[in-house]
Amino acid sequence: MKNYPQKQFERIDDLQRKGLKIIQNTQKFCFGIDAVLLAHFAAKDLNCQDKVVDLGTGTGIIPLLLWGMVGCQKILALEIQKDMVEMAKRSVALNGLQEKIEIIEGDIKNPPPELIPNTYDAIVTNPPYMESNKGIVNPTEGKAIARHEILCNLEDILYTAKRLLKPKGKFSMIHRSQRLVDILSIMRKVGIEPKKLRLVYPSPRKTSNLVLVQGNKGGKPHLVVEKPLYIYQQNGEYTQEIYEIYGDGKQKQKGAVNRD
Amino acid sequence: MKNYPQKQFERIDDLQRKGLKIIQNTQKFCFGIDAVLLAHFAAKDLNCQDKVVDLGTGTGIIPLLLWGMVGCQKILALEIQKDMVEMAKRSVALNGLQEKIEIIEGDIKNPPPELIPNTYDAIVTNPPYMESNKGIVNPTEGKAIARHEILCNLEDILYTAKRLLKPKGKFSMIHRSQRLVDILSIMRKVGIEPKKLRLVYPSPRKTSNLVLVQGNKGGKPHLVVEKPLYIYQQNGEYTQEIYEIYGDGKQKQKGAVNRD
Repeated sequence: MKNYPQKQFERIDDLQRKGLKIIQNTQKFCFGIDAVLLAHFAAKDLNCQDKVVDLGTGTGIIPLLLWGMVGCQKILALEIQKDMVEMAKRSVALNGLQEKIEIIEGDIKNPPPELIPNTYDAIVTNPPYMESNKGIVNPTEGKAIARHEILCNLEDILYTAKRLLKPKGKFSMIHRSQRLVDILSIMRKVGIEPKKLRLVYPSPRKTSNLVLVQGNKGGKPHLVVEKPLYIYQQNGEYTQEIYEIYGDGKQKQKGAVNRD
Repeated sequence: MKNYPQKQFERIDDLQRKGLKIIQNTQKFCFGIDAVLLAHFAAKDLNCQDKVVDLGTGTGIIPLLLWGMVGCQKILALEIQKDMVEMAKRSVALNGLQEKIEIIEGDIKNPPPELIPNTYDAIVTNPPYMESNKGIVNPTEGKAIARHEILCNLEDILYTAKRLLKPKGKFSMIHRSQRLVDILSIMRKVGIEPKKLRLVYPSPRKTSNLVLVQGNKGGKPHLVVEKPLYIYQQNGEYTQEIYEIYGDGKQKQKGAVNRD
């Protein structure tokens, strides 16, 4: 990667999956474990024929991970921030995936014509978690836009997801557990019936901080609440499942892990 | 108990808590672990000054357990089935608790005047779990009324709970996890904001079958998802927490249990 023309504050990270790499700007929003958990959760129900949309892609991490996990037919990734679009496009090019992953500049509330209603097999999103009125330092700053509901809220995202999905198409999201009532109520209200829920806990004795949820457009009510997902064991090490989600080999590097 | 005049098919069970006993009819609905889990969950936020209502009390198990756990000022327990009301009253008398627990015959959809709006500190309910159109054998039979939404549904219960609770009063319920979307949506709709949720799992690798939920009348949105509650360990024994919920001493009788 020595000759790759990086911009100021940028770094290239190895995704440790099929040689994939991503460009991130250390002064902006860099991806975290939530992106990895969402990609893994959504990938279980995708196959290589699927057409997928990522709403609010940021660095393009979710399409890259989904490509590494499943190899979908096409992934369209929408992002509103011009500088993130440009950087995500460079990441896609860096991996030679321009035919498979398309980064599109546009607003979730009013998606551009490249995104066609009633078309996609699946939609994924790792949206801003925080309500717009809570604790924003600088609403014009990129990190704030990625974290707070400044430019779109949960309802905007769900309405657009409903419009773009084909009937029975799958919607997958990671969000904060404290907003579970909003999430499930609005999903049902817009017509994406929640079908699968998995609570994520930092460790076995803590309250849940994140939730993975999947719904079907026009599905019938019947929710499956999957077994909990723990990030750390009591001793502070990652759980076996987290090692597995991050890909093979890490466990051996970091020492043996006991199954719960 | 030798001289107690039992009716046909009745038995008296020891609740293993402060000497409390309950009469049950082996041909009808007998209480299960869900009643014990609900009482324990609700009791954490009750104190001895509270006035409490149990909607659909059946045998009267919840008021008796709450009495054993907290000793509330007064527990009013509503039940629509005449024979259950009569049996529950005998259970209350058997324990000498007529001053503290009042069994009232009446319909949740149209509660009798003994139940006064905007009055109670807490409402608890272990309602019928099954929607009325699903798999009913005999809708006039007592077991079916206890298990299926024949005489009232979730919305009826929540509307009445909202009406009876005082502002900020607490509503606690156990229900099937598969109906979590209904539960949270309808709670918010009627004005009982879900504040605390605990998923119950038969064992650590299974999907959740039951959910404990608590809401406040007129509360602000912010849900806490507590750590999971497991009934059995991987080896088939009850977990330490279940032994603790059922009361002291059982663990020693049944052998040592490892903490997870």
